[in-house]
Amino acid sequence: MFNIALFGAGRIGQVHAANIANHKETCLYSVIDPNPESAESLARKYQTKVQAIEQAISDPEVHGVLIASATDTHADLIELAAKHHKKIFCEKPVHLDIERVHHCLETVKQYQVPLFIGFNRRYDPQFRRLKTLFDTGTIGKAESLLITSRDPSPPSAEYVKVSGGMFRDMTIHDFDMARFIIGEEPCSIYAQGSNLVDPAIGQAGDIDTAFIIMKFPSGAMAAITNSRRSGYGYDQRIELHGEKGLLSAGNIKENSVELWENTGCLAARPEHFFLQRYREAYIAEWDHFVNVMADRATPECSGFDGEQALYLADKALESLHSGKEIKL
Amino acid sequence: MFNIALFGAGRIGQVHAANIANHKETCLYSVIDPNPESAESLARKYQTKVQAIEQAISDPEVHGVLIASATDTHADLIELAAKHHKKIFCEKPVHLDIERVHHCLETVKQYQVPLFIGFNRRYDPQFRRLKTLFDTGTIGKAESLLITSRDPSPPSAEYVKVSGGMFRDMTIHDFDMARFIIGEEPCSIYAQGSNLVDPAIGQAGDIDTAFIIMKFPSGAMAAITNSRRSGYGYDQRIELHGEKGLLSAGNIKENSVELWENTGCLAARPEHFFLQRYREAYIAEWDHFVNVMADRATPECSGFDGEQALYLADKALESLHSGKEIKL
Amino acid sequence: MFNIALFGAGRIGQVHAANIANHKETCLYSVIDPNPESAESLARKYQTKVQAIEQAISDPEVHGVLIASATDTHADLIELAAKHHKKIFCEKPVHLDIERVHHCLETVKQYQVPLFIGFNRRYDPQFRRLKTLFDTGTIGKAESLLITSRDPSPPSAEYVKVSGGMFRDMTIHDFDMARFIIGEEPCSIYAQGSNLVDPAIGQAGDIDTAFIIMKFPSGAMAAITNSRRSGYGYDQRIELHGEKGLLSAGNIKENSVELWENTGCLAARPEHFFLQRYREAYIAEWDHFVNVMADRATPECSGFDGEQALYLADKALESLHSGKEIKL
Amino acid sequence: MFNIALFGAGRIGQVHAANIANHKETCLYSVIDPNPESAESLARKYQTKVQAIEQAISDPEVHGVLIASATDTHADLIELAAKHHKKIFCEKPVHLDIERVHHCLETVKQYQVPLFIGFNRRYDPQFRRLKTLFDTGTIGKAESLLITSRDPSPPSAEYVKVSGGMFRDMTIHDFDMARFIIGEEPCSIYAQGSNLVDPAIGQAGDIDTAFIIMKFPSGAMAAITNSRRSGYGYDQRIELHGEKGLLSAGNIKENSVELWENTGCLAARPEHFFLQRYREAYIAEWDHFVNVMADRATPECSGFDGEQALYLADKALESLHSGKEIKL
Repeated sequence: MFNIALFGAGRIGQVHAANIANHKETCLYSVIDPNPESAESLARKYQTKVQAIEQAISDPEVHGVLIASATDTHADLIELAAKHHKKIFCEKPVHLDIERVHHCLETVKQYQVPLFIGFNRRYDPQFRRLKTLFDTGTIGKAESLLITSRDPSPPSAEYVKVSGGMFRDMTIHDFDMARFIIGEEPCSIYAQGSNLVDPAIGQAGDIDTAFIIMKFPSGAMAAITNSRRSGYGYDQRIELHGEKGLLSAGNIKENSVELWENTGCLAARPEHFFLQRYREAYIAEWDHFVNVMADRATPECSGFDGEQALYLADKALESLHSGKEIKL
Repeated sequence: MFNIALFGAGRIGQVHAANIANHKETCLYSVIDPNPESAESLARKYQTKVQAIEQAISDPEVHGVLIASATDTHADLIELAAKHHKKIFCEKPVHLDIERVHHCLETVKQYQVPLFIGFNRRYDPQFRRLKTLFDTGTIGKAESLLITSRDPSPPSAEYVKVSGGMFRDMTIHDFDMARFIIGEEPCSIYAQGSNLVDPAIGQAGDIDTAFIIMKFPSGAMAAITNSRRSGYGYDQRIELHGEKGLLSAGNIKENSVELWENTGCLAARPEHFFLQRYREAYIAEWDHFVNVMADRATPECSGFDGEQALYLADKALESLHSGKEIKL
Repeated sequence: MFNIALFGAGRIGQVHAANIANHKETCLYSVIDPNPESAESLARKYQTKVQAIEQAISDPEVHGVLIASATDTHADLIELAAKHHKKIFCEKPVHLDIERVHHCLETVKQYQVPLFIGFNRRYDPQFRRLKTLFDTGTIGKAESLLITSRDPSPPSAEYVKVSGGMFRDMTIHDFDMARFIIGEEPCSIYAQGSNLVDPAIGQAGDIDTAFIIMKFPSGAMAAITNSRRSGYGYDQRIELHGEKGLLSAGNIKENSVELWENTGCLAARPEHFFLQRYREAYIAEWDHFVNVMADRATPECSGFDGEQALYLADKALESLHSGKEIKL
Repeated sequence: MFNIALFGAGRIGQVHAANIANHKETCLYSVIDPNPESAESLARKYQTKVQAIEQAISDPEVHGVLIASATDTHADLIELAAKHHKKIFCEKPVHLDIERVHHCLETVKQYQVPLFIGFNRRYDPQFRRLKTLFDTGTIGKAESLLITSRDPSPPSAEYVKVSGGMFRDMTIHDFDMARFIIGEEPCSIYAQGSNLVDPAIGQAGDIDTAFIIMKFPSGAMAAITNSRRSGYGYDQRIELHGEKGLLSAGNIKENSVELWENTGCLAARPEHFFLQRYREAYIAEWDHFVNVMADRATPECSGFDGEQALYLADKALESLHSGKEIKL
């Protein structure tokens, strides 16, 4: 049984708290959050305790940490945990500044602790199945990858201001997915974007609609299309075209009920947002991290993966601002 | 080039007129209809002539007749055509009275002319493909056949009164389809029905909603579900369950456009009615009859098939009235 | 927190054990099973104890019992639990003999304890949604109900022999579903069946393929089609046709990945069997029973519902054997 | 009745011949082709005559010309026809060299004859319906347009060599579609491409897999993904995301039959290629041109549209070669 200290009692922290508590090999040992009420409320729910950062990080009973706190605390917490030889699960991103990420990963390397970055979509059963079928040669070599990722509705302008921008906040998942599926590092990137959904996002210096094209050394190409608003739920689809055909992973609908009437056949929307769509992915990634803690596996999604995805986000931004394809 | 005399210039006669004219081996030679205006209008459209019954039937230039006139004229016209050695395509049914059908088929037999009964659905590309896949062993032996047949909206009470009743008018197609797919004659039949759609249909002594179960000597069973009104277009589906799996033939939608919005994903309705859904079937059955006229084939759908489907309709009615399963 | 004694540590007992343990208002207090190893294994998993029947039933700490033991023990256990004023959740059926059911329900009535019968499908989110949309008038009055229920593969002949026959064992769920959806008691029933899947089932005196038609006082009709083997997973679909259109609840596929290649577009099978398909239904029905225990609800699915479904199964068998429609 | 001289008796000429002959207001007057056998075979089929270019173009009986000959003859024939005041339907492209196109259109303007360019996909009922629903405000303002266009299998290297390259030959349809749907001229374009399908295509200096991003003045963006080979038929899909939701036009499947078995649910492929998928589009565009000839309409798809699509193809090529986004 591994005791886990959970940093962050917000929305995503609550998802992880449930998965930690439900896993037969892990126990929610403590909750750490700058907001005492949030921390205590979550701790109470799982009949566990609240700790301060230093207390948790130096507690010899703590085997692993799950960092789901504010983005700007990730790198510091990772380093602190590494120095205390805790095994680390950290939500993406490590940091919004790639230099800081690089320095942080050096520290992790020095202390030789496993670090898993929570790119949850790699554990979505649909995308995982697509990847497995591709890896077993079902469609031959990869040629074209199309990633559709659209949120149901835009975040607040306040969130946008501290998010690091659309590429580092939202598209970063898709950059990781493209690397994961194709299994190569891209050699060029081009990004185009618009502010169409909410003028406040534009005023905050960001875009809300983005198209990206990447090319890989094998000649395969990937297109990512993003929007901060779909109008119909969370749109998460992948198409991978290969020599012999297409593998596609479609949306999961809210239910299987259809209404057929004079105006047409009405089916359910895609599941609303990431808490619904990626519920199983969060459970599966936690199970993987338990295997890492138990030395049955090494992190499938490492600090390097986190750094590379951020690097692509930075380069996409450079392309957007320069109007040029960037060689990588 | 075969010259065809067309009896009946109504809705279904017009469908056949186009197919006769468009077929490279047939020519619409003349149109016969008790309503002179209808006959002339159709003849004018195809730059051909109007004839009287006797004139057409005895015209040595006429190679084949297509009987799409009122139901109660079919048997007389078949006999007349047989006596003049014309090849005969007749819309279903031969007659609403099975004794009359039997007598008519005797006459046809005597004059040794080919008679094709237009059970158009056998030529629907979807159902034909299902049948072909079944015949080639795709799902092994047949176990359960489910036929769904629902009209978009009910006919007038006037039509109902002369229709011979729901089983002889509408379900007859499904009886033929069940025989066609399974390839056996059923050994029992049970029918249940209701008047739910339009009280006027009930007042005319008929039902508008029907469920039928038939059993075949091999143990396979068929269920037919009918309604005079779907509310969403023409619902024409078949499911055939066999030892190894299921073959299903779904509806054809009006188009492939979908609208995804907050209330759900809206797709198109099924095609509206038989003129749309079975357009290709009418063309294909005519092509088969041309092969019959050219001695390249014998009628796949014969007078016997017409008689058997009517027999099942009669027995379904007997079951409905008696509340008993009828042994055949 | 309600303490629950679980009778039966088999496949379905294990499903309930997890749901009891995971529910925030219930606790798995003890496990009772004639096989000591099964009982101990399950108790160990949830860190709880094993009890004997009498011990559990008379334990004042036990608030509710969940009966998931062998079918022939249900009625006895219900009566025992009622006499000790325990609240009762019992898997279907109460008993295979309707007289015994009737007597058992009398006892329950006498002791005034709530009894919930686990017709799990009523809690399937798909069917529940269909029912809710129907109840809110989406399609107007019900006209035709089509229930498709096919198991992935047949049970052993040993199971068949003690199952009470296909109607009491399998179709009973569909009888309940028809009553639940339509909201009326049927007034006639007709059943037809075959032994097509496995000769051993026929030798055990049972059928493995069944078609049933029921008529309701409003004129609405229901057709149930069953098979002990689909060849493609668990086929659980409902179509409800009303005045204004159709509500359909389709299968849930194992995943959303498709492979498009030269031979066609391959999608996933329906989920394999009831453990997968009705996972959420088992959770939801348990949540309902917790509401019953907490006096926030009365059993939506009562002993009477269990009795009526069995009555329809008995009458279906009478119809099958007599070849007649049975008036109810 | 308009008499039509058809230039080109090849694959696409034969499609048009049938549509000309079947239209109630047009008559296939003559066929012109450098290959006498092809010309005569087609003329014989429609019981019409063969003409030489000059003969047809100066024949006072000819009301309109349909140019479906080799690409490099289009501009010359258009000019010749314009000078003889014939109404002109020309297959895309006018010419592969944009200067030549420009000069040709000047001539057409001078002689004031209507010129329709056959971008057939604008007349596909699916895409047309999507466009209509968008124009009527169904999803609000356009934000993202995704065009998928994949051929079933690659052309020969010989064809590739004279095709003008993938952008001018294949993507040109998608450039036109993007302009048609969005209703604006793009202000920037970026193209990326690979040679993955057939090395011979690369040796001929061309690509076979392409991704293009365009931005429009309103901020809307379009992504086009192309391949010379899908492995599963002709993949022709459009997604248009707007403020309120998504309009998508999916593929048309070869049939509606599905096979459900243990390995999954197999549905039909998309229709094989343009002759099948765009059969109705060819008929509809011809009907539009008949309206143009009868002065009931002006060309919806003009020489200017042909020029603009070619311009975008040229700029895409410039982007591909320079690795830069091109401002338009």
